[in-house]
Amino acid sequence: MNFASDNWAGAAPAVMSALTRHNTGFSPAYGTDPLTAAVAETFNEIFEREVTVYFVATGTAANALSLAAYAKPGGAIFCHRDSHIQVDECNCPEFMTAGGKLVSVAGANGKITPDGLTKAMAAFPDGVVHHGQVATVSISQATESGTVYSLDEIAALKEVCTARSVPLHMDGARFANALATLGCTPAEMTWKSGVDVLSFGATKNGCWCAEAVVFFDPEAARGFEYFRKRGGHLFSKSRFVAAQLEGYFEDGNWLETATHANGMATRLAEGIREAGGRTAWPVEANELFPILKRSQFNALQAAGAMIYEWPAKDLEPDHAPAEDEVCFRMVCSFATPDQDVDAFLKVLAGTV
Amino acid sequence: MNFASDNWAGAAPAVMSALTRHNTGFSPAYGTDPLTAAVAETFNEIFEREVTVYFVATGTAANALSLAAYAKPGGAIFCHRDSHIQVDECNCPEFMTAGGKLVSVAGANGKITPDGLTKAMAAFPDGVVHHGQVATVSISQATESGTVYSLDEIAALKEVCTARSVPLHMDGARFANALATLGCTPAEMTWKSGVDVLSFGATKNGCWCAEAVVFFDPEAARGFEYFRKRGGHLFSKSRFVAAQLEGYFEDGNWLETATHANGMATRLAEGIREAGGRTAWPVEANELFPILKRSQFNALQAAGAMIYEWPAKDLEPDHAPAEDEVCFRMVCSFATPDQDVDAFLKVLAGTV
Amino acid sequence: MNFASDNWAGAAPAVMSALTRHNTGFSPAYGTDPLTAAVAETFNEIFEREVTVYFVATGTAANALSLAAYAKPGGAIFCHRDSHIQVDECNCPEFMTAGGKLVSVAGANGKITPDGLTKAMAAFPDGVVHHGQVATVSISQATESGTVYSLDEIAALKEVCTARSVPLHMDGARFANALATLGCTPAEMTWKSGVDVLSFGATKNGCWCAEAVVFFDPEAARGFEYFRKRGGHLFSKSRFVAAQLEGYFEDGNWLETATHANGMATRLAEGIREAGGRTAWPVEANELFPILKRSQFNALQAAGAMIYEWPAKDLEPDHAPAEDEVCFRMVCSFATPDQDVDAFLKVLAGTV
Amino acid sequence: MNFASDNWAGAAPAVMSALTRHNTGFSPAYGTDPLTAAVAETFNEIFEREVTVYFVATGTAANALSLAAYAKPGGAIFCHRDSHIQVDECNCPEFMTAGGKLVSVAGANGKITPDGLTKAMAAFPDGVVHHGQVATVSISQATESGTVYSLDEIAALKEVCTARSVPLHMDGARFANALATLGCTPAEMTWKSGVDVLSFGATKNGCWCAEAVVFFDPEAARGFEYFRKRGGHLFSKSRFVAAQLEGYFEDGNWLETATHANGMATRLAEGIREAGGRTAWPVEANELFPILKRSQFNALQAAGAMIYEWPAKDLEPDHAPAEDEVCFRMVCSFATPDQDVDAFLKVLAGTV
Repeated sequence: MNFASDNWAGAAPAVMSALTRHNTGFSPAYGTDPLTAAVAETFNEIFEREVTVYFVATGTAANALSLAAYAKPGGAIFCHRDSHIQVDECNCPEFMTAGGKLVSVAGANGKITPDGLTKAMAAFPDGVVHHGQVATVSISQATESGTVYSLDEIAALKEVCTARSVPLHMDGARFANALATLGCTPAEMTWKSGVDVLSFGATKNGCWCAEAVVFFDPEAARGFEYFRKRGGHLFSKSRFVAAQLEGYFEDGNWLETATHANGMATRLAEGIREAGGRTAWPVEANELFPILKRSQFNALQAAGAMIYEWPAKDLEPDHAPAEDEVCFRMVCSFATPDQDVDAFLKVLAGTV
Repeated sequence: MNFASDNWAGAAPAVMSALTRHNTGFSPAYGTDPLTAAVAETFNEIFEREVTVYFVATGTAANALSLAAYAKPGGAIFCHRDSHIQVDECNCPEFMTAGGKLVSVAGANGKITPDGLTKAMAAFPDGVVHHGQVATVSISQATESGTVYSLDEIAALKEVCTARSVPLHMDGARFANALATLGCTPAEMTWKSGVDVLSFGATKNGCWCAEAVVFFDPEAARGFEYFRKRGGHLFSKSRFVAAQLEGYFEDGNWLETATHANGMATRLAEGIREAGGRTAWPVEANELFPILKRSQFNALQAAGAMIYEWPAKDLEPDHAPAEDEVCFRMVCSFATPDQDVDAFLKVLAGTV
Repeated sequence: MNFASDNWAGAAPAVMSALTRHNTGFSPAYGTDPLTAAVAETFNEIFEREVTVYFVATGTAANALSLAAYAKPGGAIFCHRDSHIQVDECNCPEFMTAGGKLVSVAGANGKITPDGLTKAMAAFPDGVVHHGQVATVSISQATESGTVYSLDEIAALKEVCTARSVPLHMDGARFANALATLGCTPAEMTWKSGVDVLSFGATKNGCWCAEAVVFFDPEAARGFEYFRKRGGHLFSKSRFVAAQLEGYFEDGNWLETATHANGMATRLAEGIREAGGRTAWPVEANELFPILKRSQFNALQAAGAMIYEWPAKDLEPDHAPAEDEVCFRMVCSFATPDQDVDAFLKVLAGTV
Repeated sequence: MNFASDNWAGAAPAVMSALTRHNTGFSPAYGTDPLTAAVAETFNEIFEREVTVYFVATGTAANALSLAAYAKPGGAIFCHRDSHIQVDECNCPEFMTAGGKLVSVAGANGKITPDGLTKAMAAFPDGVVHHGQVATVSISQATESGTVYSLDEIAALKEVCTARSVPLHMDGARFANALATLGCTPAEMTWKSGVDVLSFGATKNGCWCAEAVVFFDPEAARGFEYFRKRGGHLFSKSRFVAAQLEGYFEDGNWLETATHANGMATRLAEGIREAGGRTAWPVEANELFPILKRSQFNALQAAGAMIYEWPAKDLEPDHAPAEDEVCFRMVCSFATPDQDVDAFLKVLAGTV
């Protein structure tokens, strides 16, 4: 019963199989190989337009390099208080942007709001050199709270970006999970809603290490290969990233794995509600943050469930865990077996 | 007949097999998995002492992060004029060291000499703030010219380092090739000769993307994990690097692949000499830089040999290619088949 | 009636006079001149111990370079939400620390509290690489709210620093003003209370541009001259900074100017209370943030008072300006004439 | 007899007088004062066009920030091997450009040549990410060897820049000295010859600390104020820089001081030739590098001349100091009195 994180899994079978398939023979290095070109073409198809795509191998690199491409001296990068770039990347964004400042925007359910963003940006009026200047807005889709921005919500944030002439970055570490939830097209969830640059994550959803930086504005992408190389993020045997992505995309595998993961999370959420529990935030992708009685939590752990307490920081007081309750995080992935969910729910039912 | 580069190959069978073997099940992320711990232990055995080892996935990252660990404001990093960090890493070392200056040291056969190093360092006297301060010395083993430092040569450079109190870094992108040539132990080629930190390369010699930063001074390693993460070089599914290295090391596979590659290069060099050619530098590892008549070069290319002209920059005038000659680079790897060498030499023999 | 800022003044007479006095003759450049040495000796006397002192010329440089000396990869620097380094330095601290993150700590009256600091630091547990690592704590004395930390308050913050093994930095842009208020010795307000490094500001209190970075730990100061020079902050004709400071210190001039400025602020605060107004925060140095009826504010502006509205961000709701009220900032300096205060108070009295 | 450096002097009388004159009263801070605006207008007049000018206070800051404005990831900055940015700025250019690489170009008389530049740039072909990318070319006028580029020489270098689409930076730490030598207009020596951005130095020629970054391309200047502030180089009492420059320019003072300094150097050079000596490079501005018998050198030092040996690195073997000769540097400034030159020459004449 491993619900620790979606990065505790290995590679999905189709991904591993593609990697094995492309292991033989010689191929040009540093991204000049035909497989890389073919997978780049796949991105065009997926996004229904010519995009400029660069492969990297960690989500942190994808995010930080995306932000570097739009960096300004004294630049302020706006993101949710709980976002990965703010909390979990050890200042990689600050470093890659040569000293950018990540400005936290509060907001319910792990999402920033147009109002919150507007207010945060107001502290950086144009032309006041002391405060620095607005540089980028970054949203996570799905969010760190396991929620998903609607297309309207993205578009509304884009309006605020446009008003201040800054680009909109999407951290899509769980892009496929969000996409499966919304049931829209990749194009709709990105450039059609105003996203300028996307960290397209594939690692959590079934690759070993495969991420892509996708620019929808070719002008902004100019010279990005130098940022990537300067960061040490250009692979010599680059086809190993492309091969993973080939396997990831073929036969719609990526949406299938995401749909599976989301489904497991939904089942867990339902079981938790049936057991008298609740979740800290709506369960809209493959992560959930249940709140249960401590006795229930203990029973689940005792039964072998890999679950860990979570500091539920931004919960409204009337929603936060009570004295005898625990909030914890569960993450499902392509590799989460139905049986583990069954087993978990069975133990849980026994605690009621 | 692919002699383009050792990074045009895929992964060696043992490496691919280990990767496949470790693909199932769940494992803690970000380097906290048992496989990573086990492979780290293997490094202790290989180097016959407790070392502090960090896995990354590109040689550029390994080099630049190693240098970052020893960076100083206004720091000068001394390296060969043709070294990878100076010529081929798009300022990643400069960036990761927050503005370090790479100072080129000339020297025959791709190697810096104690005398050349001493002179270069003399431009940075202690306490003269304008010029900056000496920070690190970096050597490549094997070198970019396909040569190998002897243990005595390394030890002699270490003396210069010690005189100025700077650490000695070794770029071991082709560590195994050099080791196979010297026939010494990894310990002898590194800390016993004075190396403080090593970029241990495994990618070129049979992995997909597996490199390690090996510190022989645990004190210098303190906090290095923050440099790695700040650079975006910590992998979530980190066992995929460890798995490659497990396969790389098992049954002495890494030395076998290196020995094979070196042997192919030696055979090529012999054939070239027999055909009336020469090499720009001694052939001591898996790279060679032949100088042949242009007609011979053309015949080889026409026969399908993937070989490309090389600017033989630092050749003494009496050794440089003549008007009707061409210098080109050939690199052998674990994947270079005997048949390709046979075929190449047969074509070459026909040109005499 | 100019109350815009203490940096709208020129240099105090004693400072200008010293600068003129030292204008003739030749003197070694780059800080090696005898006057610089003599003024450095004065710092030893003022702080009653051997200190290591470096002159720079902007407060932003002093702060950012101080923090650079203690920077770590992924480092978190804790400071008040309204501090100058967080709000007014255009990411200079982030840049000079190669990507440090400034973590805002809320707190009443412009001061961080031990409890707030402990909580903020708890988000950066030792050894969790994702979040980065604690690096420095920075307090402003006097604060941006015009208040002053007591010696006990500083010592209490130092305890929190010690518990996490981080140094305590003091931004003393208004050091003399705070010192005049506390009536203690410079030693007591700094190293005796636990301050490790001080940005000693002299510009606002009567110099043209003279600041000093004062290290109380000589070990931490090692190599700082390279940070200063790398930032472009070493002056060739360096005696011009030393000369300002000579004039600043002679005959206790610096405390006299600070006392004058503080006194002007106190008089203004009293007059404001008498006119039915209040101040947003206690008036403890040379700045005040009055809250008056808008009609009063308008009358004062109409009478020529250079005063500007201020966003009173962190005021408790029951203390914030009402609908018909305005909060504004006033800053007094050595150059604020008694007559201007008289005139201001006279206009104000007429509005009651 | 102080010939140590032109930064051993204080401020010229006109500069000091202007500083004193502007010391009284209040003035807006951070470059928004009317005096700053007026002096900026003077720059327009001097350069016969609208320029965008930013004041800083060290030459190192002016240079490094100029280069930062044109920085690219993996950027190569081409400069003379002996240039100040390469040798004397403690990696400030590397740091401010977030890891730029300064590529040394050899060349006689302290000047880079179109041919040398073309060759150096050839190592950075467009689109080859490993080597990085060409970013800027920087020349010093006057050079560190005391020579001056002719207008034709500048224009020829500009052609090479244009061919590779990079801007041309001029380090004008001794701008006035070069101008006085060429007898051309400031416009001719800069934008009319192809200079895109200029570090306009005034410190060495009579200010305390006053430098200006002058952009001839307003588009490139956009946002430069954020670079300046991020570097900690925006002064609060900014009129103190403007005041110096007002005094510097008034009544043609700046050209007069430069002409005086140049004249002193010329007289010294003539006397040296008369005494059987020579100079390492042509004496074209206010610096000279005499080569004399060691006995003559010793006699001069004994007589009180402040002169120091100089490593004459790039001299052709047949021009370098012989065994019994010494090369040393002499710098004249506005403050070098005729009497000192007389005295020096008299001592020298006695050695013949």
